Amino acid sequence: MKNLVAGNLFTLIPADLPQEKFDILLQTPGLRLERIISTDQATTKGRWYDQDTDEWVVLLAGRAGLLLENEAKIRIMEPGDWVLIPAHCRHRVEWTDGEQKTVWLALHYK
Amino acid sequence: MKNLVAGNLFTLIPADLPQEKFDILLQTPGLRLERIISTDQATTKGRWYDQDTDEWVVLLAGRAGLLLENEAKIRIMEPGDWVLIPAHCRHRVEWTDGEQKTVWLALHYK
Repeated sequence: MKNLVAGNLFTLIPADLPQEKFDILLQTPGLRLERIISTDQATTKGRWYDQDTDEWVVLLAGRAGLLLENEAKIRIMEPGDWVLIPAHCRHRVEWTDGEQKTVWLALHYK
Repeated sequence: MKNLVAGNLFTLIPADLPQEKFDILLQTPGLRLERIISTDQATTKGRWYDQDTDEWVVLLAGRAGLLLENEAKIRIMEPGDWVLIPAHCRHRVEWTDGEQKTVWLALHYK
């Protein structure tokens, strides 16, 4: 049996975050689960994420604006909001909260 | 491209919950992601969960006591706490908060 592993999604968050912080919580050949912490960061202007795998992502703290290429409006993401982003659905983070940390949990899977 | 699907983990929670509520958020041949809502429920006395797949589980709201067979003490789970429960590591929920809803997100995977 593998060792147990445990943690908390809301701890070990550095006070200063010049860049987004990605922590891999779980990785197997078929999936990757990661915690992402953002503070007032956005995807670089004009850039889009275009991923080979589907992504299920939930915002757990903070607030963000998520734009999917095939949608007219930015999605305002608040705690508990999740969205399934199919592979190759281009998307970008327009903004994240500047006052508090934004915590995401993202599951990338094949 | 598949349709987008979206939701919120903290909505659509019935006020009365005589039993735990399980909602499958995502299912593929390799994984199942589910939201579990509990109120003052526990695993039946003397019963253990014994699963064929690994489970990564996080508590997002409320509070619970989780007992893993190979640990001496009950783990007190608070918001953000997660634990990886390997397949066939027997475990049970000793108690969940009686005052508020307890919300779990569980990822079962092969």
